[in-house]
Amino acid sequence: MADGLRVTALAGGVGGAKLAEGLAYLLPPAQLRIIVNTGDDFEHLGLTLCPDLDTVMYTLAGIASSETGWGIEGDSFHCLAGLERLDGPAWFRVGDRDLATHLLRTEWLRQGARLTEVTRRLSTTLGVSHSLLPMSDRPCRTIVVTPDGELPFQTYFVKRKARPQLMGVRWDATMGIGATPEVMAALAWADVIILCPSNPFVSIDPILALHGVRDTLKESHVIGVSPIIGGEAVKGPAAKMLQELEGEASAAAVATHFQDVLTGFVIDCVDSGLAPRIRDLGIDVEVSETLMPGLDERVALAGRVLAFGSALRG
Amino acid sequence: MADGLRVTALAGGVGGAKLAEGLAYLLPPAQLRIIVNTGDDFEHLGLTLCPDLDTVMYTLAGIASSETGWGIEGDSFHCLAGLERLDGPAWFRVGDRDLATHLLRTEWLRQGARLTEVTRRLSTTLGVSHSLLPMSDRPCRTIVVTPDGELPFQTYFVKRKARPQLMGVRWDATMGIGATPEVMAALAWADVIILCPSNPFVSIDPILALHGVRDTLKESHVIGVSPIIGGEAVKGPAAKMLQELEGEASAAAVATHFQDVLTGFVIDCVDSGLAPRIRDLGIDVEVSETLMPGLDERVALAGRVLAFGSALRG
Repeated sequence: MADGLRVTALAGGVGGAKLAEGLAYLLPPAQLRIIVNTGDDFEHLGLTLCPDLDTVMYTLAGIASSETGWGIEGDSFHCLAGLERLDGPAWFRVGDRDLATHLLRTEWLRQGARLTEVTRRLSTTLGVSHSLLPMSDRPCRTIVVTPDGELPFQTYFVKRKARPQLMGVRWDATMGIGATPEVMAALAWADVIILCPSNPFVSIDPILALHGVRDTLKESHVIGVSPIIGGEAVKGPAAKMLQELEGEASAAAVATHFQDVLTGFVIDCVDSGLAPRIRDLGIDVEVSETLMPGLDERVALAGRVLAFGSALRG
Repeated sequence: MADGLRVTALAGGVGGAKLAEGLAYLLPPAQLRIIVNTGDDFEHLGLTLCPDLDTVMYTLAGIASSETGWGIEGDSFHCLAGLERLDGPAWFRVGDRDLATHLLRTEWLRQGARLTEVTRRLSTTLGVSHSLLPMSDRPCRTIVVTPDGELPFQTYFVKRKARPQLMGVRWDATMGIGATPEVMAALAWADVIILCPSNPFVSIDPILALHGVRDTLKESHVIGVSPIIGGEAVKGPAAKMLQELEGEASAAAVATHFQDVLTGFVIDCVDSGLAPRIRDLGIDVEVSETLMPGLDERVALAGRVLAFGSALRG
C-alpha cells in the first residue's frame, strides 16, 4: 500500500509521538523522516531541555512512560527530591535517567554540536533507526501571550498549568531563523507530509512559522490528523486554546486553522458530522478511529493515514 | 577545656571531614570555622563539582555515606546508569540526590554568586550550623605532575586510580589568587589552627599555597594531625604520594613536610617511636588514638586536639 512512499511527519509531543510510532512500525527508515517541534525547548538549571524531541525519541525507543507519555518508563525522581530538599526549583519534573539525556545533550551542544547531530547521536544510541529531525538547530522558543503578559511556553504550560487565557502565540527569534537543511530536504523529498495529531498552536505552528516551511507545504500533499475528538483534546490544552483563539474547539476548527496547507484531514468517527464543513474548505476528509492508547491503534491509524495520503497523491 | 577557644580547621575530604565533625560536636558555631580545599574541584558535564566541600558538608549534615565517605547515604545512581546507557562519561560516580547539589551550585555560580555564598546557602539548607569556607571563590585547580605529563587531579585520582608516579604538584592559576576574605579573617581570628588528617599534598598544600596563608600560619598556633598511621593512609593515596615525593611514608615525613608552620603534631599510638624525631624539628608531639570510624572516636580525637592546642597556646 505504501510501497516506496516517502513520508515526512511533523510532530509535537505525546499525540505526535504515538502516530510517529505507528508510522515507524510500517515504514522502513529509508521512507520516513520525523520533524519535531523545538518551540517547547527551554533552559532549566543550566540544561537544555527538549520535551517534544525526547517524547518522540523515547516513544520510538520503546522506553517512554506509558503512564505520563513523557519521560522514561519506571524512572525515579531522586534528584528532584534532592532539589526539593535544597529548596531548588522542582516545578519541572525531571527523572533521574531522563536527566542523563539532558546532561549529555547540553554538554554536546556546549562543545559546538548542532541539535540535529546531538539528536542523531542520542536516538541512535537508544536504538531508534528512524530519522528524528529537530525543526531548528537554533533556539526558537514559543511565547504565549496572556492577559498577564507574555509567558515562556513551559511557564505557561507547566508552572501555570495552561490556566491563563490565551490571546496569541509568537516565536522568539523566529525572524530570519529557518528550519535546518535536513528539515527542508525532508520536506522537499516527501511524497506525503503528515501533520500529526499535536497541538496546532504550540506544536505544529512553530514548525510552520520557520522561514520557507509553510510555502513548501502549500506545494505538497499534506494530510492532517485531528488532535480534537468530540470537542476535546486527548491530552493537553489544545481544546482550551482553540476555544480562546478560534472561538470553537472542534476538528473543523483545526482544519480551518490549517486550511492553507491541508490536502486531506483525518477526523474521528465521532466527528463524522463535521466532514461536510471541512470538505467545503476544499479539504478531503477521511473518517477513522483516531484514539491511539496502544501500538495496535497507532499502527492502524498510521495505515489509514498512509492509504489516504497515497490515494490523494493519485 | 576549650571554653571560648577560637578554632579554625583546614580540611580536605574524608579524613578532614571526620575530625571536623568531632570539632563541630564540641564547639559551638561561634567558636569554629572550617576551611575546605577546593583544589579537587572540577567541571564534569558542565557542572561544577566540589568533592571536598561536599564531603565535609554532607558529613556535618549527618547524611554522608558511611560506606564510601563521599556522597549521600543511600543515594541511588540511576542518572549514572542513564549516562552509561547513552555512552556518556560515567567514570565519576555521581549519585542522584548528590546531583541536585551540583545542579544548584552550578546554577547559582552561573548567576554570579560566590562559591562562599553558595556553600553557605547549601549547607544552611542541609542544617549545618557551623561555617564552611571554601578556600577560594575562584578555580585554583590541583595539577599532578607524572611521567605521563601533567594531569588534572580528578583524572589522576579517579580515572587513573592514583597509579601514575607522582613527581610534583602544582596549582593552576594560584599565582595571584588569594584565599577569600572570609578565610583570611578566620585565620586571623583563630586562637588555634588545626591541620586535619587530610592528604598533605592535595588537600592541605592547596590551601597553604594561596597567597598569604602560609605566612599567616607561621605566626599562629598550628596543630597538625597525622593522616599516616603506621606508614599507611587510612584512605586514599597519601602514603604512596609521600613515598614518591618525600622518600618516606610516615607521620614523621608529614611533620617534616609542614615543619615551617607546625607548633604541635598529633600522631597515632602506633607511631609513638617517631615522637623524638618530630620533637627534634622543634614541634611538640601528642600521641593519641587517631582512627575515627565513628562519632565517638571523632569527638574523642577532637577533644585531644583541642586540649593540646589550648595547652600549647599557654
